[in-house]
Amino acid sequence: MFIYVCQIQFVEDKQEFSRFPTKAGRRSLSRSISQSSTDSYSSAASCTDSSDDETSPRDKTQTNSKSSTDFCVKNIKQAEFGRREIEIAQQDMSALISLRKRAQSEKPLAGAKIVGCTHITAQTAVLIETLVALGAQCRWTACNIYSTQNEVAAALSELGVAVFAWKGESEDDFWWCIDRCVNTEGWQPNMVSLPLLFDKIDANVHSLRVLSKAGKLCVPAMNVNDSVTKQKFDNLYCCRESILDGLKRTTDVMFGGKQVVVCGYGEVGKGCSAALKALGAIVYITEIDPICALQACMDGFRVVKLNEVIRLVDVIITCTGNKNVVTRDQLDRMKNGSIVCNMGHSNTEIDVASLRTPELTWERVRSQVDHVIWPDGKRVILLAEGRLLNLSCSTVPTFVLSITATTQALALIELYNAPEGRYKQDVYLLPKKMDEYVASLHLATFDAHLTELSDEQAKYLGLNKNGPFKPNYYRYVCTF
Amino acid sequence: MFIYVCQIQFVEDKQEFSRFPTKAGRRSLSRSISQSSTDSYSSAASCTDSSDDETSPRDKTQTNSKSSTDFCVKNIKQAEFGRREIEIAQQDMSALISLRKRAQSEKPLAGAKIVGCTHITAQTAVLIETLVALGAQCRWTACNIYSTQNEVAAALSELGVAVFAWKGESEDDFWWCIDRCVNTEGWQPNMVSLPLLFDKIDANVHSLRVLSKAGKLCVPAMNVNDSVTKQKFDNLYCCRESILDGLKRTTDVMFGGKQVVVCGYGEVGKGCSAALKALGAIVYITEIDPICALQACMDGFRVVKLNEVIRLVDVIITCTGNKNVVTRDQLDRMKNGSIVCNMGHSNTEIDVASLRTPELTWERVRSQVDHVIWPDGKRVILLAEGRLLNLSCSTVPTFVLSITATTQALALIELYNAPEGRYKQDVYLLPKKMDEYVASLHLATFDAHLTELSDEQAKYLGLNKNGPFKPNYYRYVCTF
Amino acid sequence: MFIYVCQIQFVEDKQEFSRFPTKAGRRSLSRSISQSSTDSYSSAASCTDSSDDETSPRDKTQTNSKSSTDFCVKNIKQAEFGRREIEIAQQDMSALISLRKRAQSEKPLAGAKIVGCTHITAQTAVLIETLVALGAQCRWTACNIYSTQNEVAAALSELGVAVFAWKGESEDDFWWCIDRCVNTEGWQPNMVSLPLLFDKIDANVHSLRVLSKAGKLCVPAMNVNDSVTKQKFDNLYCCRESILDGLKRTTDVMFGGKQVVVCGYGEVGKGCSAALKALGAIVYITEIDPICALQACMDGFRVVKLNEVIRLVDVIITCTGNKNVVTRDQLDRMKNGSIVCNMGHSNTEIDVASLRTPELTWERVRSQVDHVIWPDGKRVILLAEGRLLNLSCSTVPTFVLSITATTQALALIELYNAPEGRYKQDVYLLPKKMDEYVASLHLATFDAHLTELSDEQAKYLGLNKNGPFKPNYYRYVCTF
Amino acid sequence: MFIYVCQIQFVEDKQEFSRFPTKAGRRSLSRSISQSSTDSYSSAASCTDSSDDETSPRDKTQTNSKSSTDFCVKNIKQAEFGRREIEIAQQDMSALISLRKRAQSEKPLAGAKIVGCTHITAQTAVLIETLVALGAQCRWTACNIYSTQNEVAAALSELGVAVFAWKGESEDDFWWCIDRCVNTEGWQPNMVSLPLLFDKIDANVHSLRVLSKAGKLCVPAMNVNDSVTKQKFDNLYCCRESILDGLKRTTDVMFGGKQVVVCGYGEVGKGCSAALKALGAIVYITEIDPICALQACMDGFRVVKLNEVIRLVDVIITCTGNKNVVTRDQLDRMKNGSIVCNMGHSNTEIDVASLRTPELTWERVRSQVDHVIWPDGKRVILLAEGRLLNLSCSTVPTFVLSITATTQALALIELYNAPEGRYKQDVYLLPKKMDEYVASLHLATFDAHLTELSDEQAKYLGLNKNGPFKPNYYRYVCTF
Repeated sequence: MFIYVCQIQFVEDKQEFSRFPTKAGRRSLSRSISQSSTDSYSSAASCTDSSDDETSPRDKTQTNSKSSTDFCVKNIKQAEFGRREIEIAQQDMSALISLRKRAQSEKPLAGAKIVGCTHITAQTAVLIETLVALGAQCRWTACNIYSTQNEVAAALSELGVAVFAWKGESEDDFWWCIDRCVNTEGWQPNMVSLPLLFDKIDANVHSLRVLSKAGKLCVPAMNVNDSVTKQKFDNLYCCRESILDGLKRTTDVMFGGKQVVVCGYGEVGKGCSAALKALGAIVYITEIDPICALQACMDGFRVVKLNEVIRLVDVIITCTGNKNVVTRDQLDRMKNGSIVCNMGHSNTEIDVASLRTPELTWERVRSQVDHVIWPDGKRVILLAEGRLLNLSCSTVPTFVLSITATTQALALIELYNAPEGRYKQDVYLLPKKMDEYVASLHLATFDAHLTELSDEQAKYLGLNKNGPFKPNYYRYVCTF
Repeated sequence: MFIYVCQIQFVEDKQEFSRFPTKAGRRSLSRSISQSSTDSYSSAASCTDSSDDETSPRDKTQTNSKSSTDFCVKNIKQAEFGRREIEIAQQDMSALISLRKRAQSEKPLAGAKIVGCTHITAQTAVLIETLVALGAQCRWTACNIYSTQNEVAAALSELGVAVFAWKGESEDDFWWCIDRCVNTEGWQPNMVSLPLLFDKIDANVHSLRVLSKAGKLCVPAMNVNDSVTKQKFDNLYCCRESILDGLKRTTDVMFGGKQVVVCGYGEVGKGCSAALKALGAIVYITEIDPICALQACMDGFRVVKLNEVIRLVDVIITCTGNKNVVTRDQLDRMKNGSIVCNMGHSNTEIDVASLRTPELTWERVRSQVDHVIWPDGKRVILLAEGRLLNLSCSTVPTFVLSITATTQALALIELYNAPEGRYKQDVYLLPKKMDEYVASLHLATFDAHLTELSDEQAKYLGLNKNGPFKPNYYRYVCTF
Repeated sequence: MFIYVCQIQFVEDKQEFSRFPTKAGRRSLSRSISQSSTDSYSSAASCTDSSDDETSPRDKTQTNSKSSTDFCVKNIKQAEFGRREIEIAQQDMSALISLRKRAQSEKPLAGAKIVGCTHITAQTAVLIETLVALGAQCRWTACNIYSTQNEVAAALSELGVAVFAWKGESEDDFWWCIDRCVNTEGWQPNMVSLPLLFDKIDANVHSLRVLSKAGKLCVPAMNVNDSVTKQKFDNLYCCRESILDGLKRTTDVMFGGKQVVVCGYGEVGKGCSAALKALGAIVYITEIDPICALQACMDGFRVVKLNEVIRLVDVIITCTGNKNVVTRDQLDRMKNGSIVCNMGHSNTEIDVASLRTPELTWERVRSQVDHVIWPDGKRVILLAEGRLLNLSCSTVPTFVLSITATTQALALIELYNAPEGRYKQDVYLLPKKMDEYVASLHLATFDAHLTELSDEQAKYLGLNKNGPFKPNYYRYVCTF
Repeated sequence: MFIYVCQIQFVEDKQEFSRFPTKAGRRSLSRSISQSSTDSYSSAASCTDSSDDETSPRDKTQTNSKSSTDFCVKNIKQAEFGRREIEIAQQDMSALISLRKRAQSEKPLAGAKIVGCTHITAQTAVLIETLVALGAQCRWTACNIYSTQNEVAAALSELGVAVFAWKGESEDDFWWCIDRCVNTEGWQPNMVSLPLLFDKIDANVHSLRVLSKAGKLCVPAMNVNDSVTKQKFDNLYCCRESILDGLKRTTDVMFGGKQVVVCGYGEVGKGCSAALKALGAIVYITEIDPICALQACMDGFRVVKLNEVIRLVDVIITCTGNKNVVTRDQLDRMKNGSIVCNMGHSNTEIDVASLRTPELTWERVRSQVDHVIWPDGKRVILLAEGRLLNLSCSTVPTFVLSITATTQALALIELYNAPEGRYKQDVYLLPKKMDEYVASLHLATFDAHLTELSDEQAKYLGLNKNGPFKPNYYRYVCTF
């Protein structure tokens, strides 16, 4: 869930994109690396996967209604269905639509040629179509061989965006798509959108990381991940909802009265704990940091070592970012029927590898749900094989994706329009004021009305009436 | 979700079961009518519906491993898979298992011959196998042509229970199954288990209602629905969880900041409101009863008329048991993208019929999710066509089904073993003490430890040390 | 906190009121017994106790501005200050004022002559003045020698109500006041208002109980205590607020992170637990009733035996109605600095007597706060010597008293105006519809708007459009 | 509530302390400025103010049991009572006691000569006695002419600490006390403890600010105010409790169903809102910062402009740090009986001055409670004349004061023992690791058990096993 939007001075790094042409036009040839927020797949996506047609898209010739053939998707005829998915997504992305409306007469991205490599979902489509509305030309490919919503790819292609992606690409397809996306006659990208850190489930991590690393070294980049807004939403608020959703969809577990241990009391742990407590679970916390531990105490949780409660609890949820937080020895002592899952930032928190031993039987009972069975018949329910539960087993609300997408759009505009010299070869945070702007665009959804400072009050507080209202260092807020 | 367990003096009512023999043996020929609690389908069930074999079960000859052919299911070979589903269900039904273990040496149902007509799910199977363990002979058929888990039916048949049911029966199949279940050579049922009130979605309502009505008139019956334990669980606690689950699975809606109006502040409304508020929604209540309204105020909700907030809210949830609580006129004024659903006791709460007019377009976007589109493009999202959301779009926790099933088992034991004359031709509530016993069996799940009265304290309070701890009229507790 | 309002056939019971004349007029000479709800004293009351004047009121001759001398209070000159206290109370008793306004043209109590014996507080005054506005003549005396607000008594006397009461009466004064109140030339009471059960701290219990017992035997009486509205407010909602207030005012304890055991999970226990959990305490529950215990589990509390947590907890709160719930043996094992208090219905829950032994030192550190010190220096903080915390150490919101007072006023009107024969010599609950009416009068405070049934809906539900909306047995709601 | 602890290179600044000698001994002459956290007065303090003796302490000669006369307090004979207050405070300050025990053999403050000018309360006494136990010599005076607990001052003096303070000093007394405290034969302070920013209610602000400003300019100082631990406790957690306490003690208001607007959604606003919502109030938020506003939305609050709800709400609470947040115009439109109070950082938030006009009547109904009465009889209840509610009308839990005091003690140790050159003439934040240490000392109170990193985990995370666990910039956490 880390995203970079950047504008890169092209530096003849031909390893991956050897046919990239050199700089031309007002701006040097650059790459803007961005990614649609999360690895989740919407429910809709999984419903519509009719694999009736077995022909590879590479072997088909398709033409959209404007007679263009500059795209490669599963089936261009699904465009109408995809359009509906995009329209549904737009309903919860009114901030981005609002930005689109406000800025489309100015065309702040006129001349921008953006290549993107992200998940291709309805929400991404809303972002791409916003970039187009603001003047950009876009070509897009998928960052993951499984995550493309075929209908959405068709709808974008029908609109004229050159998309090269389908669900279920082979690795060879994947590279073929990137090549077709980037290398086209008479078109040179000057911005790129790429994920900085891919989740470990992606097959394509290595190569893209090289690309992103190259980018980091030689151009200004904007870290849209560490904005306050995105952090609070992706972590605290989003996890508060997705922990419940993820557990319910996989196990139908009743929350009331369940004893749960949440390992780690950062933003993710806080969100998970609050939601479960609110639904009647009894939650224990483990922590290494005494400040977080003290907060857990004040919030009404018992702070324990995992070993103290391991025989007692019904559910373990890891939210630490650490490794081997739940060990084989501890899994051995869990109750029959207990559930183990991970909401943290990696797939290392539960020592899943230690469970792949001959004396234990694995039984896949549902998608993403394994029963690990001990010789005495005890079953421990492992979700998503220890990978992130909310990426694998629940959906991310479109509203959260809207915040991410709006932030990305603003970052692209800022980088593209900044005066020469404002940004050097470094990683920047989105300026505080833009962070506030993203937030303000989303208030309409809640019919929330902001109070405005009077001149007298602004003077008293030493603030500009239009913000920023807090200093830049207030963004480091997410961990306590 | 209303269930009756009853023991019926056979009265030559040959309408439905014309070949029922007359009384024989210690007890008169009776029928016990019971039903596994709810209309929900577990997630697992839907995963395993491989309709590869198109032959009707009626046309196949199947034999279980004990060479019996006295059953009719989709595919007896699925028994092993079904056994696993039953084992999983048992993990959350430890109270019933505990009852089974405590009572199986006594065999309190020895001699009982029970025919059941219920949903055939893994949870029902745990009940049936408990009845068998306590000495009963059971024959079972489905109360709904869609709700049978084929693997579970196979597993029961493999064990020797005569099951006649499969998923996707025709109406003719349905009656054929009932006939085969009830009328068999050399076996005369003396107890029956039937639902009293079927949800309106059932095709079979009418006929079974006739049966149940016949039963009501001439024999003692036990209303296991109105026990305190079942009420609190099926309504307050269950709805608290299922409203979140149902909304998430259908719409992926984010709860935080959403404005929601809950119509009705009985137990169901209280459960829905509490859960949504806990997840960050702003909840309004409508009520007709000033006492409930005052409680809503004290619980921190604004009490409004629906018309005051209709243009404002993102979600309407009906929990009234009333009709036309949401009218076409009100639906006309809702916001684009708003959601309407029903958690009450009927499908009449939302005036869905009024939406089936030519100027409105219906678009089915997912299973159970319709977009109703106004001429100006406004979409209102209608869930489950106004039927019960938690039956259609979420699962009921096995633990809740365990409470229902344990209550049913106890009711059957009580009716079967009561001394002549204790129960007359009337409807009885489960005695308070048995209600308490069901609750106490479920405490182990939570590792909860009950305090025992000392002799001195029992005397001071005028109570028996073993309960009942409250008078019988305390069961009428569920509505405020 | 139990209150009776009754109309009593006079039966020559001359023990207490020997000079009562015999029946005369349409109604037989009756006594109406009522009491202002609770034993609490408002903060204001305690502020205004200036004991400058040491002359006994009995020895003073005082005259109000209308030249009446038919009263006996501390100082009639305090009337203006008392009037302000009454005005303040009126602000939170708008329902009673609303009843007063609606009914004062009808004068439904015209001809009623009411003697009352209750706490004389600003809230009581609002009730008395309402009764007067509705046509009654009232004479009033105090039920407790300490609880009179002198200024309020003065304000009532100034208005013409014959009040005989002051703070700090001797027992002899007490009886003198009752005599002067009841026995006056040319005035015969026909209704009486008395508490049924006095709290044990009252010195006057015995005699009044005799009176109330006499009443119960020979006349209809109305139990206003068991109305749903009063129960929920006096128990659940009131305790939710007063447990925090009572603990804070006495000990300044921080709630966050405190480990608390609440003994008993009825309405009082539920209110206390919910409030403490909401403020960040970790709450354990003890219960004898498995149904309540199961609810505690589902509400997210661990259910334990007291001995399991006695060494661990910071606070014990008893809410059982039982005796010796906390024994000396358990007190011996509590932590240094831990707090013990009682919110239940008696002063027997904590075995305080067992602490009055020579090896323990008692140290009174503040009003209502004792440190009990063990030989090793351990201190246990005992509040209100085990009596009800919310009566002794916190205030009861005027709004709650308003509900009680409105219920009392309605009960008096009902009894006084009921057709001959409706009420026999028995104890009646307030009719459900009047309970709903009390609730509806209080909705305006919250700006709550009730929904009205359409004719069609009323017919569908089988209800009268104006209520009652629930059957009478729904009042037994308060215990689960 | 801002506190500075600093060690000051003496720079011949003779304005305030003209008789300060020059540097002598191992360390240069320094001053350590610290203050006991808050302006609150414990309940106990106010109980024990028996002003029987009207002789000024300056005119009395008192001698403690060790024959010392180097102190000036109200009455040395109250020492025993004060000792008990200190003992009670110690029970909730176990972290400081624990620090005292761990470090007293090392005497890390041996040679330190500390003068302090703070509130003199039982909690301060625990700090002072800890400093003494660690080797320091201390002389102390009061920073506020009203805030001294006389008994505590007596107990400290009895122990040998030179205290010059009593409750109700004149301004002349105040300066006399400072002089006597600082200027004594043969004793030169090398550390000083002073508040940086005094609350505006203090009469002595100006002079002390000059002193503190002088200090800031020429020596290293440690800002113990901005530590994460202190911030979260003083703001979020403390306000969560004190808003309820302050409102209850002053107005006995019932929270359930009340409509409240909280102006400002920083930490203080978050704490107030959460507590009130938890107790059943309906809370609205006003905000100027869109990021905070968006958080309020997600937390389930409606974000409004004050004018939208001003006619509706029962309570206004300001938490902004801004001025004139509630104007006369808005006060004119409030409901009869509504309450206005301030929890923010100044007394400017409510425009109280605008209420001091002839057409409005002020009526003091209780301590800290004024009714402001409009010509039409409308009353608005103003608390603490718009000053901080939690300083004036509620207590601060000792536990919170313990965190502040422990932080101060550690800061003094750090400054006193730091190698030459570590701290320059600047303001330092307590090093992150010490912040964590303060937190860890307080975990024992909650019986909380910290998890320790394994070597492998520490390496994986790139952390030292003993912390710090977060970078230094994580302290800027308190405002969102």
